[in-house]
Amino acid sequence: MKGVITRINPRATLIDITHGIQPQNIQAAAFALAMCYRFFPKRTVHLVVVDPGVGGNRNAIAVQTDDYFFVGPDNGVLSWALAREHIRATHLLQNEAYFLHPISGTFHGRDIFAPVAAHLSRGLHISKLGPKLEKIVQLPPLTPSRLKRTITGRIVYIDRFGNAITNIAETDLVGADSATAEVHIGRKLKCGLAHCYSAVARGNPVAVFGSTGMLEIAVNCGNAAQQFGLQVGEKVLLRLGRVGNPQPARTQRQPGNR
Amino acid sequence: MKGVITRINPRATLIDITHGIQPQNIQAAAFALAMCYRFFPKRTVHLVVVDPGVGGNRNAIAVQTDDYFFVGPDNGVLSWALAREHIRATHLLQNEAYFLHPISGTFHGRDIFAPVAAHLSRGLHISKLGPKLEKIVQLPPLTPSRLKRTITGRIVYIDRFGNAITNIAETDLVGADSATAEVHIGRKLKCGLAHCYSAVARGNPVAVFGSTGMLEIAVNCGNAAQQFGLQVGEKVLLRLGRVGNPQPARTQRQPGNR
Amino acid sequence: MKGVITRINPRATLIDITHGIQPQNIQAAAFALAMCYRFFPKRTVHLVVVDPGVGGNRNAIAVQTDDYFFVGPDNGVLSWALAREHIRATHLLQNEAYFLHPISGTFHGRDIFAPVAAHLSRGLHISKLGPKLEKIVQLPPLTPSRLKRTITGRIVYIDRFGNAITNIAETDLVGADSATAEVHIGRKLKCGLAHCYSAVARGNPVAVFGSTGMLEIAVNCGNAAQQFGLQVGEKVLLRLGRVGNPQPARTQRQPGNR
Repeated sequence: MKGVITRINPRATLIDITHGIQPQNIQAAAFALAMCYRFFPKRTVHLVVVDPGVGGNRNAIAVQTDDYFFVGPDNGVLSWALAREHIRATHLLQNEAYFLHPISGTFHGRDIFAPVAAHLSRGLHISKLGPKLEKIVQLPPLTPSRLKRTITGRIVYIDRFGNAITNIAETDLVGADSATAEVHIGRKLKCGLAHCYSAVARGNPVAVFGSTGMLEIAVNCGNAAQQFGLQVGEKVLLRLGRVGNPQPARTQRQPGNR
Repeated sequence: MKGVITRINPRATLIDITHGIQPQNIQAAAFALAMCYRFFPKRTVHLVVVDPGVGGNRNAIAVQTDDYFFVGPDNGVLSWALAREHIRATHLLQNEAYFLHPISGTFHGRDIFAPVAAHLSRGLHISKLGPKLEKIVQLPPLTPSRLKRTITGRIVYIDRFGNAITNIAETDLVGADSATAEVHIGRKLKCGLAHCYSAVARGNPVAVFGSTGMLEIAVNCGNAAQQFGLQVGEKVLLRLGRVGNPQPARTQRQPGNR
Repeated sequence: MKGVITRINPRATLIDITHGIQPQNIQAAAFALAMCYRFFPKRTVHLVVVDPGVGGNRNAIAVQTDDYFFVGPDNGVLSWALAREHIRATHLLQNEAYFLHPISGTFHGRDIFAPVAAHLSRGLHISKLGPKLEKIVQLPPLTPSRLKRTITGRIVYIDRFGNAITNIAETDLVGADSATAEVHIGRKLKCGLAHCYSAVARGNPVAVFGSTGMLEIAVNCGNAAQQFGLQVGEKVLLRLGRVGNPQPARTQRQPGNR
């Protein structure tokens, strides 16, 4: 893919976001993209090739937002990033003039997405790529549910340090007293919130709103996913204290009270 | 190595083809190179450092073809790519003026291959590097054998998705009816040919001519190598149907008939 | 991090030294940096983010030496490289004008170190970053001890080939007869010194002064760490022969004589 891009645009700057996505894991790729795309320069072309349906009947798309381009399969992998952007136009990739030939049935990353991204990076207008598309495939939204002072989220990503990142955002806590908040994962893990990993002793669990702005469960200098057997998809409860009266939240800590 | 190259040619574009080659696996490196070198821009310098004999008596070489340069140890790692190219000149790397000093006994990638590649990328004439070499070391050729309608190949590479790539090329099937062809790996795997992975149900095996142009055995949304215990070197049989009469191939599917 | 750097300095050349450091392993990162920083062009900004204390009370620093800049946490990770350099100035990173906002508590790599490194690469004077610092945190020095003709070192790094690299440098042997030197690791490994891995038969252990200039224990075409169960921190004895009289060293090879 990088060879193909460099042939079309020798001045392109190529940056790998991650090689750590598990094969076929669309949600992990969607999450990684949503968490970091906005740190790149304006007019960056974000190219994603987690594409288990390659060669089948899923669509290939390019999307232009106010600041970026996105290129990839229309399987939901772009949807969490695009939910945070203002979309200007979405086009199907159908104009074979911008493809590499012959087109394989198993690697559209090389034959379709990479050359299209390279042409966009050179200034090609997105409308040249194919007809407009109105709606793209969406993953289930990346938002937790809330009942009174309990937010129910889930683990959506485990990073290479074993930190379990959830779909609970810092903004979900507005007005709550985070000092008395508690995180529960089933009966196997309970911890408080802190500003950084080293706020607790080595080897202890801690919940922080991490660099993604999302709640993550970590172990200071350890691997939370291994230590507590955490999995993507597991339910995470965040119990918020009442502002000015932290007692009720503490009461819920008693055994048998869950 | 990248530091050394950048010191000599600050404008060089550095692209990693793969970090996934198993230590000392010359055939895997030779295959990876042969499958992707031609997607890079003309005048690209392909630098390979899978070099178990480093510091011993193997030669170090640079090769110029019509479109590319290749630099590496003369241990066969370049031979499968070069078999597809028209070679203009091969030179031994002996002119120490283009090396990094002192030269270590264990990392010629940094001390010899990287600086030589950097000088070639700046336009150095290959003849400056050392005397001409007539013949380079060859790996066993990357071609299957054929008896009537059975092509016998082998697994040469397993990619990070667990797809088992063989030495049987799409061009080996010219004139055959691929719709009735069958792939056999011992008694443990039998499947048909399709255009893409998703042509079969999730979890089922399928053979496709993949993005390399070579026959590969995959499992749709799965890991074929793990599921069927596939290894590099295993024999793969491709049984071709007779054009206009697919029955004989189907007859061979009966149990006890292999 | 690369997105942040590219936004500030679109012409920066970004090179990854390694993605193979174990989480929180400050010594491994310090060693990797010390072994390769000097192969990069002058004025390179070396950016290190092995930072288990992120968000706590450790300092963040930038260091200018005669040839390079170094940016990272003040946790010792820079100390082995800096021990080989002439330091011109060290400054605390306190001027938030050069940070990315908001600053997370868990990823100063992205929010502090990357933008500071990008600004230095554009020519920002290091004194703009914050007040001067006189002393940085030091790891235990990377030097072995010596008693008569026995040098006692330790394994400090195991590379991806399973080679065990020690803190014994080639310069520690000045005046000794390396041809008769012997390496001992407890009772489990004994081998001689050679110039390259292939000086011994496949599968045999050998000690070489590798590309880092440090003594490393390897197995020709094998994985020494796996074969002999080697660990970082293990004691390594190097017994030197007497120049002109190699017998004593050989005598020590007798069983029961250790």
